[in-house]
Amino acid sequence: MDELVLAGDLGGTNLRIAAVDADGRLLYRAEGETPRHSDACKIVDAVVCLASECLAAIGSDGEVRGFGLAIPAIIQSDENRIFSSPNLPELNGFDLSGELTKKLGLSVTLENDATAAAIGEHWLGASRGFDSSICVTLGTGVGGGIILNGKPVRGPDGTAGEIGHICVEPLGVACGCGSNGCLEQYSSASAIVRMAGELLKEFPDSKLRCIENYNASNIFECGIADDLLCVEVFRRAGMYLGIALSGLINVLNPEVIVIGGGVAEGWELFIEHVRAEIRKRAFQQPAERARIVRAALGGDAGIIGAARFAFGKTA
Amino acid sequence: MDELVLAGDLGGTNLRIAAVDADGRLLYRAEGETPRHSDACKIVDAVVCLASECLAAIGSDGEVRGFGLAIPAIIQSDENRIFSSPNLPELNGFDLSGELTKKLGLSVTLENDATAAAIGEHWLGASRGFDSSICVTLGTGVGGGIILNGKPVRGPDGTAGEIGHICVEPLGVACGCGSNGCLEQYSSASAIVRMAGELLKEFPDSKLRCIENYNASNIFECGIADDLLCVEVFRRAGMYLGIALSGLINVLNPEVIVIGGGVAEGWELFIEHVRAEIRKRAFQQPAERARIVRAALGGDAGIIGAARFAFGKTA
Repeated sequence: MDELVLAGDLGGTNLRIAAVDADGRLLYRAEGETPRHSDACKIVDAVVCLASECLAAIGSDGEVRGFGLAIPAIIQSDENRIFSSPNLPELNGFDLSGELTKKLGLSVTLENDATAAAIGEHWLGASRGFDSSICVTLGTGVGGGIILNGKPVRGPDGTAGEIGHICVEPLGVACGCGSNGCLEQYSSASAIVRMAGELLKEFPDSKLRCIENYNASNIFECGIADDLLCVEVFRRAGMYLGIALSGLINVLNPEVIVIGGGVAEGWELFIEHVRAEIRKRAFQQPAERARIVRAALGGDAGIIGAARFAFGKTA
Repeated sequence: MDELVLAGDLGGTNLRIAAVDADGRLLYRAEGETPRHSDACKIVDAVVCLASECLAAIGSDGEVRGFGLAIPAIIQSDENRIFSSPNLPELNGFDLSGELTKKLGLSVTLENDATAAAIGEHWLGASRGFDSSICVTLGTGVGGGIILNGKPVRGPDGTAGEIGHICVEPLGVACGCGSNGCLEQYSSASAIVRMAGELLKEFPDSKLRCIENYNASNIFECGIADDLLCVEVFRRAGMYLGIALSGLINVLNPEVIVIGGGVAEGWELFIEHVRAEIRKRAFQQPAERARIVRAALGGDAGIIGAARFAFGKTA
């Protein structure tokens, strides 16, 4: 009888839970929508429903050791307590792990989603085999997870890793966090859409003008087809990402930097600009050390990381 | 018979060596000048001379366990090898620890000076009792040392901690490192002198005009006497330091940030600007967590840190 865990990724939109074995194989997956704008109990019910589906599917074939759940929130890991959950505010201060344990009879561990993704990539993905890695997720926002000497850096408040809120332009665009010029305002999917809008006037011939409600994927597709506006947007996104990563390379000397999230689809349009900034701005030796690679686990990084700590491993 | 170590701080100008006991007390100090612009053997001789003076002074009262030496260079600590020594280029690639061991008959450990200062402050100074701390030294340049989970962050190349080369102004002043807008160009003693010069035209009444070859101390003294130019220079230095520290707070969630070096003498002129940027730019919870304090050990931080690892402790 194999040892298994349940692992989940509770996103702002989607909820996914899987039964995962000790090699990180997803033996069964259950997916649904995250109940929004209601109350925490609805979220508990949705998680319990999908978790039960997984447990039923694996039947008596495995001994389930625990349940790891990645969530978009700040967690004080000593206490397994949700401190701040901007995307799912109904979870603020809610005892999610306690409620799930009660209903599922499993020990439940919560982890910040970006840290979980870093742990997943470190276990079985792009940073596997490296002791020190930085994981940057370029999605709606910009998230980050850091592993040094083989251990996730969480900090006493569980807030470490907020790479998206490194300042890259002191008097730059106002950020939701209260600061100005955060990386998130230049290298996230939302930033790419905003920057494209700002540049429309300068590029009257851009094909983007013909697309209603364009998104970051549209901008990428036009960029690949040499649309100058879209090429410029990804150049800026890459340049600012490079500025932030240069600082991290100088300060932390990581072996590998893993870039994931939806915007990473635009890899070929931005990565050379990231590398150019690093060559210019970071010290030569750590810059040559730091491999800049694409995330390998895609949307599964969080769930695989959650499985890893459900198995009681620290990274 | 007490257990002792020798500990030294080999600066670009001064060389200081002391006999230190297990409580970090400096029992005997020997000081001299660092031989410059000659060859590495002259440096070895100078170190051996002062170390021998210390050994003679303590006589047979103590058993000397080893010799820790802080130097202004990048050291790959696994190999105790000097990789890059911009301020004392004669040490590049030189086997300093091997030569000293041969002449003194002691095991010699080298450590980067900024990391040594962080270890010293962590052992007996301003960050004592905190598991995670960041030490910033505002001197001719801006150095940094980071301790997370009680361990110094060195990185695989020994280059971690280069806080002075975080970019705080993407198109800013050219830095010796090849980048633009590094913190060092705004918050070091040299930057303070340069910024004062740039502002002279805008402040025709500044008292600084009457001081020939003014230095950072002169600018501080005039600032304390409400000279508007000098007040503005320290405001800028503090603002940029605050921008860099906000990023570090968001990324590393440290418990304490220790600020030392000559520029810290201007504390009352710049610290409120540092704090204002942190309040504005860092997330509330880690910003409230991070105490911003002055270094407690002054010029002895490096030597005390060097003693700590000569005793075989990691931090």
